[in-house]
Amino acid sequence: MTLVLSIEEQREILDMKNVLEVLEILYKEEAAGRALSRRRSDTIVPNKTGVYGLKSMDGVVPAFDVGVVRINSDVITWPVIGKTKRRVKVPAAPGGRWVGLMLLFSISTGEPLAIMPDGFVQRMRVGGTSGLGVKYLARQDVKVLGLIGSGWQAGAQVLAACEVRNFERVVVYSPNRENLVNFVDEIGREVQVEVSAADSSEEVLSAADVLLCATNSIQPVFDGLLVRPGQHLGCIRHCEFDENAFKRIDRMIIHSPNASPMHQVMDEVQMEELAGDQGWADDHGGVDWNNVPTVSQLITGQVEGRKSDEEVTCFANNIGLGVQFAAVGARLLQIAREKGVGHELPTEWFTQNVHP
Amino acid sequence: MTLVLSIEEQREILDMKNVLEVLEILYKEEAAGRALSRRRSDTIVPNKTGVYGLKSMDGVVPAFDVGVVRINSDVITWPVIGKTKRRVKVPAAPGGRWVGLMLLFSISTGEPLAIMPDGFVQRMRVGGTSGLGVKYLARQDVKVLGLIGSGWQAGAQVLAACEVRNFERVVVYSPNRENLVNFVDEIGREVQVEVSAADSSEEVLSAADVLLCATNSIQPVFDGLLVRPGQHLGCIRHCEFDENAFKRIDRMIIHSPNASPMHQVMDEVQMEELAGDQGWADDHGGVDWNNVPTVSQLITGQVEGRKSDEEVTCFANNIGLGVQFAAVGARLLQIAREKGVGHELPTEWFTQNVHP
Repeated sequence: MTLVLSIEEQREILDMKNVLEVLEILYKEEAAGRALSRRRSDTIVPNKTGVYGLKSMDGVVPAFDVGVVRINSDVITWPVIGKTKRRVKVPAAPGGRWVGLMLLFSISTGEPLAIMPDGFVQRMRVGGTSGLGVKYLARQDVKVLGLIGSGWQAGAQVLAACEVRNFERVVVYSPNRENLVNFVDEIGREVQVEVSAADSSEEVLSAADVLLCATNSIQPVFDGLLVRPGQHLGCIRHCEFDENAFKRIDRMIIHSPNASPMHQVMDEVQMEELAGDQGWADDHGGVDWNNVPTVSQLITGQVEGRKSDEEVTCFANNIGLGVQFAAVGARLLQIAREKGVGHELPTEWFTQNVHP
Repeated sequence: MTLVLSIEEQREILDMKNVLEVLEILYKEEAAGRALSRRRSDTIVPNKTGVYGLKSMDGVVPAFDVGVVRINSDVITWPVIGKTKRRVKVPAAPGGRWVGLMLLFSISTGEPLAIMPDGFVQRMRVGGTSGLGVKYLARQDVKVLGLIGSGWQAGAQVLAACEVRNFERVVVYSPNRENLVNFVDEIGREVQVEVSAADSSEEVLSAADVLLCATNSIQPVFDGLLVRPGQHLGCIRHCEFDENAFKRIDRMIIHSPNASPMHQVMDEVQMEELAGDQGWADDHGGVDWNNVPTVSQLITGQVEGRKSDEEVTCFANNIGLGVQFAAVGARLLQIAREKGVGHELPTEWFTQNVHP
């Protein structure tokens, strides 16, 4: 049978502890050369409302007996909200929904094991990986977690950080006050720590031992001159940091070398905007993104982590990889089967008796 | 709703005439820069029985309002059968089945329109494209179609060729006599032309005005010295032709420039074998595969076709593209909806209310 798991079912059964555990195994496999990713590609054309982007990435991890294809089918616009230009994915599918899928396959038999929406795993794998950055780079005695951002991704950052360090409190800033208040309320109920809203990014910076950014801004979201010795920083988009922030970083670790995602873009589209949004420019912040140590190297001790309590460390969760979806997907599938959760479809629907 | 179509349902509703029609539109769109493909990638690791390969390609064609991801999840071995080494995909999925899928998405809304096994479309798009090669390159007065190969792909070559020219007879050779006899019997019932079995490739070569190869051999399947003036040749794998065959060709057209498929291969695997099997070597047959005119250019008159009845023409159906699956898939979906064929699944299963 081929399993279909809804976002709700996934949330019900998979917690951040499991995600951190399986990602740590993954990065050890990757360091040993036993996990392969096919980098993300974006095939982008104009459509009636803006731009259509078909994004895919693959990953194969024999240790989990799982290969994955992760697909996003996005309708994208770039409005200016507040004062910053943002990339907005429009929920244009029936019912006002977004479209992202992951398909899991068995390495032993090739069979399709599961098909499911990707949004929850997307959130958990990004959060979990940032969490491993905190685990291996932040000081042991950190007390305050600072967060900029209050969207879907932001919550997982808090869950993961709180899983790897005993924070006393969490301080969050987001320019959208209503989102911020709701977010603080929601996430406060999920973690055993006091969560409060700040009035500015400056307030977060001055309080935080660990600062994580999880926004959809394509402009810097705080003043890098405010970075203090001993802080650990995390970002998902490098454009959230200004030049000064990068200058203050003593030890930088990235998720994966910065091989550019592959773009196929039709002429009519503003290619510059797309590239600036989705790619990591090779020299942004004066960092040579192709030659920074990776989280795999950090976790397996191939490169050193923080050397003193004064160092400013940073984990740039830069390039997503298919293997993250393979790892988290495999764990999700394992738990779903144990608990009998999900909707089974006949595997014959997705296999064939003719030679492909 | 998201449509699931079985191979049987697909065969029932889509004929070669439709495929040729929609592919011709596609290549015009491609020539105008309005169809984008993300090239095939192979992510390959060892498994218990041989090798596991996760293959994917994407294509987006606004004219059809369809984006596609085509996935193969293959268990592969390389046995020597007869005297030639072959690549064999093992039907290792439950029920002894192969795994290939295509997922169609709407460019307007992003929604998943259909999920279906790919084997039938795979066959029809390869056959149809070879058929366009015959249509635009073979002499008008051809009488005999020669075919080497008797597998799943071979039949579609005959269907397509017979759609674009009025052949008097078809002569087929395959080293596996039992397969050959069955094939001749089957295809003979599908086309309004006499189909007979030959005892050798030489016999086919001497009779054929058009010679199409559709084998899984990774070695030459006929003696190139036997090629005669005025013949049109077609191949799916360049390794089916020897050096002499390439030397006799006056006019060569390919499907797509020979940008190498992307491979991610684990160390343990015999990379040479894989590359030799799946890639088109840049200099094979003395042909510079990166600089041969394409079928899009041929169809739109950007390059000339056959100039005389004496020329030997060749269409090398070299690199498969995602856009072929988008085009044929779009037509299939259109007909299925008109006829009410297939199995509808709730689109909500494959969409989400969280930002991906």
